Amino acid sequence: MTEDDSRFMAMALEEAEKSLADGGLPIGAVLVRGGEVVASGHNQRVQEGDPIAHGEMDCLRKAGRQKTYRDTTLYTTLSPCMMCSGTILQFGIPRVVVGEAENFVGDIPFLESRGVSVTLMDDAGCKDVMHRFLAQPGGQALWHEDIMED
Amino acid sequence: MTEDDSRFMAMALEEAEKSLADGGLPIGAVLVRGGEVVASGHNQRVQEGDPIAHGEMDCLRKAGRQKTYRDTTLYTTLSPCMMCSGTILQFGIPRVVVGEAENFVGDIPFLESRGVSVTLMDDAGCKDVMHRFLAQPGGQALWHEDIMED
Repeated sequence: MTEDDSRFMAMALEEAEKSLADGGLPIGAVLVRGGEVVASGHNQRVQEGDPIAHGEMDCLRKAGRQKTYRDTTLYTTLSPCMMCSGTILQFGIPRVVVGEAENFVGDIPFLESRGVSVTLMDDAGCKDVMHRFLAQPGGQALWHEDIMED
Repeated sequence: MTEDDSRFMAMALEEAEKSLADGGLPIGAVLVRGGEVVASGHNQRVQEGDPIAHGEMDCLRKAGRQKTYRDTTLYTTLSPCMMCSGTILQFGIPRVVVGEAENFVGDIPFLESRGVSVTLMDDAGCKDVMHRFLAQPGGQALWHEDIMED
């Protein structure tokens, strides 16, 4: 973990907090190339009624068409689900920094088995924003909808 | 393969043809529940500048928020990439009907290993629309961009 990692995760967390303030799911992401932010985004299920717009996906959408992702790092406040993991693999993103994997474990070993370098920060702020969301009325139901656990 | 499969694949192919006519990538998808179309969509990389909008993803976005996907079938003209495969798994879509897997092989055994029922139609129309696209000037380059093969 580097100083840059902490700085970019703080930006991803800002995205998560913004989404929470807007009544959405508090998961944010930042795409970085060469120490510069390419794009940032957050979950848009509630805001846009869009089930594919997890934080990572919204960030990649906002980055627009890129020639390559092989020189990028993706920061996400929460461990990626299979949609986002598959996307990381298809896009050829070589490194992912994960804020926390307690509120959603994801499948980090799967990413690693396919050659992705994953750094797990176990960040208190990333956990806290999910805890506040899940404690809200309807938070649990919205969360289960978001990860399609029925 | 059923009569319904042929009918819904024809609709997915219509989406692909529409995208080709608009200068986009000719890959379409349809989400079906109980013999009724929930939504249809097509690749939007060119049209929306959106790298995550493969045909399957655009279709799922257009379907909006759904309570469950466990009673749905996803039709796609071309074998799903890892982004779309991961999405199929995360969403819990139990059955996928694939138009063709020649122009992109994808990883159907991966989907099957995770419990998805996959029907490969090897449809001449689905192959033909990709052939016409790839034969266009710039078609090959756009295709490699779309599957992030650099």
